[in-house]
Amino acid sequence: MTQDFSQLDGRGRLRHLITLDGLDPGLIRELLDRAQAYLCLPGQLPPRGGDLRGWTVANLFAEPSTRTRASFELAALRLGADAVNLDVMLSSRAKGESIIDTIYTLQAMQVDVFVIRDAQPGIIEYVARHVDGHVSVISGGEAHISHPTQGLLDALTIQQYKGGFRDLVVTIAGDIRHSRVARSAHCALTALGVAELRLVAPAELMPDADEFAGAARIQSFDEGLAGADVIMMLRIQKERISGGAPSDTEGYHALYGLTAARLARARPQAIVMHPGPMNRGIEITSEVADGPQSVIRQQVANGVAIRMAVLAHVADARRRRAP
Amino acid sequence: MTQDFSQLDGRGRLRHLITLDGLDPGLIRELLDRAQAYLCLPGQLPPRGGDLRGWTVANLFAEPSTRTRASFELAALRLGADAVNLDVMLSSRAKGESIIDTIYTLQAMQVDVFVIRDAQPGIIEYVARHVDGHVSVISGGEAHISHPTQGLLDALTIQQYKGGFRDLVVTIAGDIRHSRVARSAHCALTALGVAELRLVAPAELMPDADEFAGAARIQSFDEGLAGADVIMMLRIQKERISGGAPSDTEGYHALYGLTAARLARARPQAIVMHPGPMNRGIEITSEVADGPQSVIRQQVANGVAIRMAVLAHVADARRRRAP
Amino acid sequence: MTQDFSQLDGRGRLRHLITLDGLDPGLIRELLDRAQAYLCLPGQLPPRGGDLRGWTVANLFAEPSTRTRASFELAALRLGADAVNLDVMLSSRAKGESIIDTIYTLQAMQVDVFVIRDAQPGIIEYVARHVDGHVSVISGGEAHISHPTQGLLDALTIQQYKGGFRDLVVTIAGDIRHSRVARSAHCALTALGVAELRLVAPAELMPDADEFAGAARIQSFDEGLAGADVIMMLRIQKERISGGAPSDTEGYHALYGLTAARLARARPQAIVMHPGPMNRGIEITSEVADGPQSVIRQQVANGVAIRMAVLAHVADARRRRAP
Repeated sequence: MTQDFSQLDGRGRLRHLITLDGLDPGLIRELLDRAQAYLCLPGQLPPRGGDLRGWTVANLFAEPSTRTRASFELAALRLGADAVNLDVMLSSRAKGESIIDTIYTLQAMQVDVFVIRDAQPGIIEYVARHVDGHVSVISGGEAHISHPTQGLLDALTIQQYKGGFRDLVVTIAGDIRHSRVARSAHCALTALGVAELRLVAPAELMPDADEFAGAARIQSFDEGLAGADVIMMLRIQKERISGGAPSDTEGYHALYGLTAARLARARPQAIVMHPGPMNRGIEITSEVADGPQSVIRQQVANGVAIRMAVLAHVADARRRRAP
Repeated sequence: MTQDFSQLDGRGRLRHLITLDGLDPGLIRELLDRAQAYLCLPGQLPPRGGDLRGWTVANLFAEPSTRTRASFELAALRLGADAVNLDVMLSSRAKGESIIDTIYTLQAMQVDVFVIRDAQPGIIEYVARHVDGHVSVISGGEAHISHPTQGLLDALTIQQYKGGFRDLVVTIAGDIRHSRVARSAHCALTALGVAELRLVAPAELMPDADEFAGAARIQSFDEGLAGADVIMMLRIQKERISGGAPSDTEGYHALYGLTAARLARARPQAIVMHPGPMNRGIEITSEVADGPQSVIRQQVANGVAIRMAVLAHVADARRRRAP
Repeated sequence: MTQDFSQLDGRGRLRHLITLDGLDPGLIRELLDRAQAYLCLPGQLPPRGGDLRGWTVANLFAEPSTRTRASFELAALRLGADAVNLDVMLSSRAKGESIIDTIYTLQAMQVDVFVIRDAQPGIIEYVARHVDGHVSVISGGEAHISHPTQGLLDALTIQQYKGGFRDLVVTIAGDIRHSRVARSAHCALTALGVAELRLVAPAELMPDADEFAGAARIQSFDEGLAGADVIMMLRIQKERISGGAPSDTEGYHALYGLTAARLARARPQAIVMHPGPMNRGIEITSEVADGPQSVIRQQVANGVAIRMAVLAHVADARRRRAP
C-alpha cells in the first residue's frame, strides 16, 4: 500500500481488506476466531447470520467461475446480503470507461462492499481510495501481490491443526516468485509469530532479495522439508517451468513435487496445504493430496468462514463509525 | 449406472437422481404427486416452501442460458435455498484440474446439492460416487443417455391430461437414437405401465436393438400415429438430417414432421408434447405446436414443479438419514 | 408502439413499460414520487419493500455486465423478488428458436416480469403482445428508440435539483440521432411541460425532421447552451464521428465537448447530466464531469429507485386487476 493510505478506520478496524501487510496480530487473531464460529461439521447446515441484511455485495471478477468468487458469494448470502456478480476486469476497461466511473456507478446503486479480483497491481487500492466513506473494498486476489483472505484461511487452517504458531516450522514450496498466496501467507504467519518460515524454490522462481523478510531461502526441497510442521505447496503454472515441455514438467516434479517419500522427511504430524487448483502429478502426487496429512479440503471450508468473518467485521466497523 | 452404485439410500429414498432406469414406480408416483402440489394457476404466485432453507444448490452447466438451468435455479429459490451458478463443463476441465477436485472444492464450501449437465457419459455418476454422504447429485441432462427430471415432467404432463398410464398408446417420434429425453421417457413410462410405447424414426435415427426394451419400432410416422393417445416429438439437430441441406430438412419434414393432417391420424383427444426448443416447420408445424392439442407450455410449468419435488425429496431423505 | 397495442391496462395503469411516448403526465409524476421514497442518504441502507415477494423477475440482456441489468436486478431484489439473469439477445435467436418460444418457456416457469434489452426495434412490444395477461414486460433499452426508465430517472433528477419543469430550458447535446436516451428524455420532458427543449448536434447526428416534435434544433453548442438550466450530454460512439480517427475525435470535442469554459454560458445553477458510460475528454471533460454542477452520480442512484418504482407500480396494478 502506498504511504498515505490506510485500510483501517480511525478506530483501527478494517474499513477495507487489501493486504495483510502490517496488520495487527490481534486483529488477525480476532478474524480467525470469528471465522471459527462460522464453521460446522460436514452434513450440518452452515451457520448463517443477519450481519449483512440489507447490504449489497458486488463481486467484480473477470471470470464467472472462479472458486474464490463462489466462496465470497456464498459468504455474502449466508450473512443475509444481496449479492450481484459482474464479470468485469476493471483494468481492461481503461479504454472504454474509466475504472473509477465504473465504481462510482455501482456505488451509486448503493453497493456496500466491492469484492475485486484484478490482474493489475495497485488497482484495488486505487478503488478503495476513491469510494465513499461507508463503502468497503475487499481484495479477492491482486496480481502476484496479495490475496489476503487466502492468507487468513491458511492461518486458520494451521491454527486448527497445530493449536498455535509459536513453535512451528512452515515450509512454502513452489513458484514463490509469482505467488500472491505465498506473499499473504508470509504476512500472516510472520505477524502470528511462527518460529521459522522457509521458502523452497528453484532460483528462477525465488522472489527478489528484498521481499519475504525473515524467511529462509532453500533450493533443496529435501532440506526445506526436514523438521517442517506445515508444508504449503503452490500451484505451478506449466508455462513457468522452463520451456514448458513435458520433460520439463517431469524434471520439476522430480525436484519440487511433494511425494509420500519426500513428505516422510517432515515431522510425522506435518500437515500438507495447497490453495488449489492442484496440478496432480506435478507439484503434488495424488497419494499426498488425498492422504491423511492433507488438509486441503479444510482450507476451502475455512475460506467461506474467513470471508464471512471479514464481511461481518467490516459491517460491524461501519456500524460503529455511523453517527 | 454401474453395478455397484445406487442412487438410493438405505431406506430406498433418492439420495441422488441420475437416471430413471430401475426406479420404483411407487417412488415415481410419489414425485409426481409432490410436484402436483407445487403447481398453480397462471397469474397466481407459485407455491413456495422452506424445505431447503439454509441449503446451497450449485448449478454446474456449461452454458449460462439454458432453460433447464433457469428451471432448477427457480425451483431452488422457491424452496428457500441459496443458488449459485457456475459456468463449468466438468468434462472439459480434465486437463487443468481433476473433476473431482472441482467437486471437492465446491463441496467444502458446503454445497448441499449439485445439479450437473454434462456432455460426457458417466461423469454425473462419477461425481455422485465421490461426494460426501450428505451431498446429493442431480442430473440436469447427461449426454444422450439420461434426463431424469425431463422424464418425470413428461410423465406428470401425461398424468394430468390422461388421468393415468395403463391404457395409453404413446408414440415418440424423431431422433430417438441421440435423445436423452426419449431414453428417460421410456424408463418412466415403462415403469408406470403404459399399454404401448412406439418409437418412430428413420432407420439411421433408430436406437440400437438392445435399447428401449418392450417398445415397438416403426419407420412410418402415419402408422406410428394411428390410435396414439400421446405424441412426444423430439428436437432434431439439423446437422443430423443427412447432409443438413435445406432440401434434406424439407424431406425430413415431409416424412417425420407433425402436421395437423398427420395429427388427425391419432386419437381425437391425443396430446402433443415437445421438450423444446422446437424447430418450427421441421419436426412440428406452428399450427400443431400452438394448437388445442399441444401441452408444450404445460410441460415447462411442470418442469419447475418436478425439480422442486426432487429437491424437496432429497432434502427430506437426508433429514431422515441424519442421526 | 403500434396502433392497436397499449401498454396500459383497463384502469390506465401500466401493465408494461415500453415507451414514455404518450404517457399521461400524472402517471409519470406518480412514478417519480414513488421513486423518491426509495432514495436514501449515502451510507444508509436503501429502503426495501415486500411488493414483489414471491415474484420472479427475469433479466434478458445480451451482455451480463451492463449497469442497467445490475440496476434492475438490485431493484428486484430490494423489493423481495427472485431475480434470474439470462444472457440472451432475443433477436439473435431467431434462427435457432423463435423468440416467442423462448418467452413462452420462461413464462411457463412463472416469470412475472420480463426486463428486456434488445437491439432490434419492435421486439419488446412484440413480446408484450404475446405474454399472458398477468405478465409484465419492461424495456431495459430498445435499439435507438426507447429507454423509458432512463427517461424517468432523468426527469426525477431534474425535479430534485430544479423543483419542477415549467420554466426550464433543457439542452440535449451530442449524437441525438442514434440515442434512445434522448428520445425517452424528449417524451418525459415534453409531457412534464418544460419551457424549452433544445437539441444540439452536428447535422449528421441530428434526428429526422418528423421526430422530437416541439424541440428546437441548434448546430452551435455555444448558442444551445445560452441560458440553459439543464444540460444533458450524450455518449458518442467513436465510430460515429466521421472517420473515427483521433483527429476527428479532437474535432468533435472542440465543437461539441462540454468544457468548463463552455458550461459558463449556461445559467449559473445549471446542472450537467450524462447517462454513462462517459468518454471523458471527448463529449465531456473530467473537470465538468466531476465538478459541482454535475449530477451524474445522482442519476445512477435515481436509476435503482425508478426501477423499484416501476416494478412496484406494475405489481400494484396486477393486484388490482386480479379478481
